[in-house]
Amino acid sequence: MQRSMAILGTKWKPIVIWVLRERKARFGQIAASIHIISRKVLTTTLQELEADGIITREEYKELPPRVEYGLTERGQALLPILRQIAQWNARYFGEELPHPEHDEDVLLNC
Amino acid sequence: MQRSMAILGTKWKPIVIWVLRERKARFGQIAASIHIISRKVLTTTLQELEADGIITREEYKELPPRVEYGLTERGQALLPILRQIAQWNARYFGEELPHPEHDEDVLLNC
Repeated sequence: MQRSMAILGTKWKPIVIWVLRERKARFGQIAASIHIISRKVLTTTLQELEADGIITREEYKELPPRVEYGLTERGQALLPILRQIAQWNARYFGEELPHPEHDEDVLLNC
Repeated sequence: MQRSMAILGTKWKPIVIWVLRERKARFGQIAASIHIISRKVLTTTLQELEADGIITREEYKELPPRVEYGLTERGQALLPILRQIAQWNARYFGEELPHPEHDEDVLLNC
């Protein structure tokens, strides 16, 4: 459980995973989606998620160079767990049940 | 997510919840089940779980006095999530899939 919690049990990793649930995104897009995370913390979070095999980091040799982050299969497999945790939280801590299309605020606020 | 992770995302809380999944237990029984947790840490963990409404603490006016801990409905509702996390961990970090009847070591080791 400790290893899984080192991934799940942190403030930002579940939220970054959730932001990437439907599409790949660039650093700036992820930062804009979460809006209250510092660039330094987001950088570290992305590096740790990549090291844990939860996300991929792809560089496109273009001008200007483009880097995109996306979920691996291992990362995708966390989404149902995150959804259940958000629903458990909504049910027992009295918030509205998160709507699937809801934005990242659902996870930020629960 | 932060509130849920304050419960799920710690080293000992998921394991104490798991130990209580099938039956109420006394302090000594919980400590013996987990065997590598200190009495001080177990005391704090039980207090925090009770404050979060995850477990109940029942005192029986007997000689010697008896105290038992058990899961609330809110606590019971976490068990499927813990099971999924343990299975996710087993699948992606290459351990044997935990057997439902397995003892707490399954959660300790994943």
